[in-house]
Amino acid sequence: MERGEIRTPAFMPVGTAATVKAMRPEEVRASGADIILGNTYHLMLRPGAERVANLGGLHKFMGWERPILTDSGGYQVMSLSELTKTSEEGVRFKSHLDGSTHMLTPERSIEVQRLLGSDIVMAFDELVPTTSPAQQQRAAMERSMRWAKRSKEEFDRGGEHADRAAIFGIQQGALNETMRRASAEALIEIGFDGYAVGGLAVGEGQEAMLGCLDFAVGMLPADKPRYLMGVGKPDDVVEAVMRGIDMFDCVLPTRSGRTGQAFTADGPLNMRNARFVEDSEPIEPGCPCPACTQFSRAYVHHLVKAGEILGAMLMTQHNLWFYQRLMQGLRDAIASQRLQAFAGEFLQRYRSPA
Amino acid sequence: MERGEIRTPAFMPVGTAATVKAMRPEEVRASGADIILGNTYHLMLRPGAERVANLGGLHKFMGWERPILTDSGGYQVMSLSELTKTSEEGVRFKSHLDGSTHMLTPERSIEVQRLLGSDIVMAFDELVPTTSPAQQQRAAMERSMRWAKRSKEEFDRGGEHADRAAIFGIQQGALNETMRRASAEALIEIGFDGYAVGGLAVGEGQEAMLGCLDFAVGMLPADKPRYLMGVGKPDDVVEAVMRGIDMFDCVLPTRSGRTGQAFTADGPLNMRNARFVEDSEPIEPGCPCPACTQFSRAYVHHLVKAGEILGAMLMTQHNLWFYQRLMQGLRDAIASQRLQAFAGEFLQRYRSPA
Repeated sequence: MERGEIRTPAFMPVGTAATVKAMRPEEVRASGADIILGNTYHLMLRPGAERVANLGGLHKFMGWERPILTDSGGYQVMSLSELTKTSEEGVRFKSHLDGSTHMLTPERSIEVQRLLGSDIVMAFDELVPTTSPAQQQRAAMERSMRWAKRSKEEFDRGGEHADRAAIFGIQQGALNETMRRASAEALIEIGFDGYAVGGLAVGEGQEAMLGCLDFAVGMLPADKPRYLMGVGKPDDVVEAVMRGIDMFDCVLPTRSGRTGQAFTADGPLNMRNARFVEDSEPIEPGCPCPACTQFSRAYVHHLVKAGEILGAMLMTQHNLWFYQRLMQGLRDAIASQRLQAFAGEFLQRYRSPA
Repeated sequence: MERGEIRTPAFMPVGTAATVKAMRPEEVRASGADIILGNTYHLMLRPGAERVANLGGLHKFMGWERPILTDSGGYQVMSLSELTKTSEEGVRFKSHLDGSTHMLTPERSIEVQRLLGSDIVMAFDELVPTTSPAQQQRAAMERSMRWAKRSKEEFDRGGEHADRAAIFGIQQGALNETMRRASAEALIEIGFDGYAVGGLAVGEGQEAMLGCLDFAVGMLPADKPRYLMGVGKPDDVVEAVMRGIDMFDCVLPTRSGRTGQAFTADGPLNMRNARFVEDSEPIEPGCPCPACTQFSRAYVHHLVKAGEILGAMLMTQHNLWFYQRLMQGLRDAIASQRLQAFAGEFLQRYRSPA
């Protein structure tokens, strides 16, 4: 892209409110990230899309000059806001911040993403709980496809922005193969620069998610980027790459960093655990990240227990490096045609908590 | 000192719990700090002095290789802990963290500071509220002088540590000139490497504090460092330097950084104020700190309003740079024999809130 190359498979750290929490932009970059994700829902409410545009766009605002993918707000509007009312036009909702009323339509979502200056724009979609009846799932998927068309049309009206940015469509259809196929066909008919698998990682469990990927990914064009939204745990990422996924985003490394969970090749460590109180080893021995080369588990444990901001900073940094090193490992394995072996070794060693 | 030069007048950022809050050690150094302060009371309770010693000392633990001054715990034990009981031996108290019972004596305070590996050790003193009757103030000052002697004796028993570290005595006596003189004479009789003015900046107001400094500083040897504990606002610092003070510590730049107050040459700015919402200027125009060269007030305002950790990081960084730039300005002015003019210009421009 114009703002920089995105090596795939790529993991996008989440910068919800115009910041990857507890990290400076240069630290995010140093971890190996080529692209970050920004949240349309959060940014349209605070500080506001027009305001960010007046200040020169999201990249300038937050000091991140490389590519940014923005989601469409479809997921957050359902999970975070109150009193949503969905119609064919779009979703009317009350802000979780101040109760003010807003409307998100495919057109407004794309406009907001354009105002932010997004490099990869996501189509606006409708999400319903995975526990909804099949009929409701189908109706939401079909509406999402009509909204995908409106999103693409609005994107194409974007002039200069449309010339330099990309737009991805989002496949829906829950865990149902027939619906996933119908969704994929509708998206391909519209024509997008990339395709996302949406509606997964919402509580269905890893087995069900991978079972769905087994058939869903292949329905999407292999010559375009395929993005699994909101995923995931390190083992989820490895499994999904084996199924053809090129892009990921997830709050896990950053959120875990603030709650004391550190990722390592052997699985997550709870740094609050008293066994680290005099442990002079780094969080993950051998890790080249600044947190591991400078500080001991004993120190990080102390910071986390004391609720110190530096604890969140160091833990987040380590976790982002862990994810980016994993992606680099996957890229190297793909380049040398040994993905299967790499994944097997990783999954053999990595112990994911239940 | 062995661990690095301390340019005076010096401002020491406070690293209470083995971290200057929201800052990495290299960022503290980059702000211009030659020395930081660590809190004996906090560190003896968590993670514990013996534990820090087992891990190689406070410098290694927190990744700060330059000098560290440790306070004696005398102030915190009175202001933070519960159920204190003071006797000639020392102070028995309950931890504010877990209610466990501890004893701080002059000997134990010095031992803790030695275990931490402090470069400048403070004598253990007794503090009583400034509202106490004069008789109680005098008794506390006199006991503090007996404790100063015991502190010095314990320090001298420290072997290798005593050879490379320094110990400062603390003048007490509230706002009373006679008591201040008696205290200074007692300390000089014992003989210290430096002398602190204690018991000020505890609510007496700037005028009373400066009035006390007018007579108190001159009682302490001019050929040794003179340290005003817990001070202060930028204008306090300038006024105190004009009265002969060489060293300061204060939580103000770091604490203010976490509550949205930014220091500038014109006075503090409340970055939560809505007038910054689209302000594309840096926090302080012309400031060379990384927060000001990279980000706008609008962005910092957004982060502070959203409660983002990066807001605390950037604000703290700017404030530490502000204080260190002020100290550099004072040092340059002293070197070129224009302290009076520099101070006059600074105080003319700086608007301190009531």
